[in-house]
Amino acid sequence: MNNRIAQLVAYMDQHAIDAVLITMPKHVYYLTGFATDPHERFLGLLIPRQAEPLLIVPALDLEAAQAASSVTSIHTHTDTDNPYEVLTKLMPAGVQSLGLEKGYMTVSRFEAISRAVGASVYADIDGPLREMRVIKTPDEVVRMKHAVRIIEDVLRAGIAQVKPGVSEIELVAELEYQMKKLGASGPSFSTMVLAGENSALPHGVPGSRAVREGELLLFDLGVYADGYASDITRTFAVGDISEEQTKIYNTVLAANLRGIEATRPGATLASLDRAAREHIESAGYGPYFMHRLGHGLGMDVHEYPSVHGQNQDVLRSGMVFTIEPGIYVPGVGGVRIEDDVLVTEGGVEVLTAFPKELTVIG
Amino acid sequence: MNNRIAQLVAYMDQHAIDAVLITMPKHVYYLTGFATDPHERFLGLLIPRQAEPLLIVPALDLEAAQAASSVTSIHTHTDTDNPYEVLTKLMPAGVQSLGLEKGYMTVSRFEAISRAVGASVYADIDGPLREMRVIKTPDEVVRMKHAVRIIEDVLRAGIAQVKPGVSEIELVAELEYQMKKLGASGPSFSTMVLAGENSALPHGVPGSRAVREGELLLFDLGVYADGYASDITRTFAVGDISEEQTKIYNTVLAANLRGIEATRPGATLASLDRAAREHIESAGYGPYFMHRLGHGLGMDVHEYPSVHGQNQDVLRSGMVFTIEPGIYVPGVGGVRIEDDVLVTEGGVEVLTAFPKELTVIG
Repeated sequence: MNNRIAQLVAYMDQHAIDAVLITMPKHVYYLTGFATDPHERFLGLLIPRQAEPLLIVPALDLEAAQAASSVTSIHTHTDTDNPYEVLTKLMPAGVQSLGLEKGYMTVSRFEAISRAVGASVYADIDGPLREMRVIKTPDEVVRMKHAVRIIEDVLRAGIAQVKPGVSEIELVAELEYQMKKLGASGPSFSTMVLAGENSALPHGVPGSRAVREGELLLFDLGVYADGYASDITRTFAVGDISEEQTKIYNTVLAANLRGIEATRPGATLASLDRAAREHIESAGYGPYFMHRLGHGLGMDVHEYPSVHGQNQDVLRSGMVFTIEPGIYVPGVGGVRIEDDVLVTEGGVEVLTAFPKELTVIG
Repeated sequence: MNNRIAQLVAYMDQHAIDAVLITMPKHVYYLTGFATDPHERFLGLLIPRQAEPLLIVPALDLEAAQAASSVTSIHTHTDTDNPYEVLTKLMPAGVQSLGLEKGYMTVSRFEAISRAVGASVYADIDGPLREMRVIKTPDEVVRMKHAVRIIEDVLRAGIAQVKPGVSEIELVAELEYQMKKLGASGPSFSTMVLAGENSALPHGVPGSRAVREGELLLFDLGVYADGYASDITRTFAVGDISEEQTKIYNTVLAANLRGIEATRPGATLASLDRAAREHIESAGYGPYFMHRLGHGLGMDVHEYPSVHGQNQDVLRSGMVFTIEPGIYVPGVGGVRIEDDVLVTEGGVEVLTAFPKELTVIG
């Protein structure tokens, strides 16, 4: 039994859960190493408290599961089988309490499973899974660094194409092409390139707006690679920019550095947000920083923890999240500078290494 | 009350459902005209059987909802409210049976809602919603034709870039750029460009493989526009192709036409699959057509009905689905020709108009 499954079994011991059924493909990957997208078909990892775990996969996934899964007891169902009958046959006798991912499973599937299994208690195991996922192992950090390396290469290739007249969506096409070329499975969210006044929209959508001299140009992009996400934002000057735009840039950069400086085990997430926000407020731009400082990053591009001013949860070594302050002034432009950071025993390791000093491109 | 909500109320009358709560954003759009992605926030359309429907939206969506929703009683919740308390206050007294989208709602949300509402029966309303969605209204057909028009323009622009040496992923980048440029909200699925031996993989993934003379080149692509999907496949010859490749092409084309010919109200879905498949079998390629003939198309790129040999459901005027036979011969190449078709009173209207005769490009 691998270490992650052992952690889950320890939780089951503490909470008198007789068996756990995992159906979210990302969690099956996390707990077995087998990545698949079963679409509508049933995929289940059954972890009895007092027996070996076993994996139920669509028949056409059998070979791939055998090659990748650390859980070696693998069972299949075909499109004409009822997968819940297969599950019931494999379920140990006397399961009273079954743990499920209640934030993922649909009511329809839950009804089918509870009819088939007939447990008396269905426990939610989203909490312990979230708790395990929030602390990244060295192997996960290696994967995340790989996803960061790809996105930084993508960004480098993308800004080489910037010149006045090129449109936001032409740059998006180039960036997403580079993602595929460099081996990412895909963007981790909708790639954002925003020029001029559009950069002042924190949730703007790239369009046919052309890059022009004397403006800010904001890139926010990420990839999934080997199951893990990266996420980076950099803002550039296209030619000479105004004094106010320069001031905004340097204020955001200093706020980004304050947030990173505050990152260490024992600090609260709220304290990071405060450290960055106070700097922006003291420069008079408080009302123009209207979003949280950052978000957790891992198998999802947005996951626990949320880095905002009300989150009193405490940082622990192994957490990974973004630090991404921004200032968005309508008519003047927006700047956001986003890094991915890892909390270490000694403080912080910044995973993103792309230069942050104000850079003129185009 | 609009006609779609009235249809749902008629279903509620027949099945003694006192109120329905819709939370899937696509269904809220379908029933009110208000499109939004609420992310983690609660969005709900409450339809009491004997009172006016009302919409519950995150506070920041209020203006957009007021502008777009045909349901004019709009209530809000902020991030510090418990949205289920808001829901409970708005729920008419004495609701015994509440209808929910059980194939969409998570167990977590269901538990929160059932605690707040305390109904004695929770009915599944996925069936009646599917039944309504399967028959497209004239307005929906207009939107689908628009999504088809965009994807055909995208394909036309994409094939203009084909020449020996260009890679699959370079063509994907060009196609996805054109989608954005032509006003689509995005691809309706992962854009597929497969060259040479890769075209023989029905679920191949585009890579750095370059287009070469004397080979087949397969494009499968679609967009979402105004909330509706298009989906088209065309296969081209790059320069001169072999006699066998030509035979395969013409066999698939004839099978596609047989499937379309068989499409009319009253025919079974199975009979369409059979008509196309028999032609491919009679040409000796039966084992190389290993997928269903097609799938329903609408607000989702894959929705009810499934066009396969076991589906005895009967075609009705207003249904839209794809007809996409294919032959995939390892080492020789693959051909698939996919159209989007609408069942009409008189038979069939083919929504896709892109030429299907074997065409040499590059």
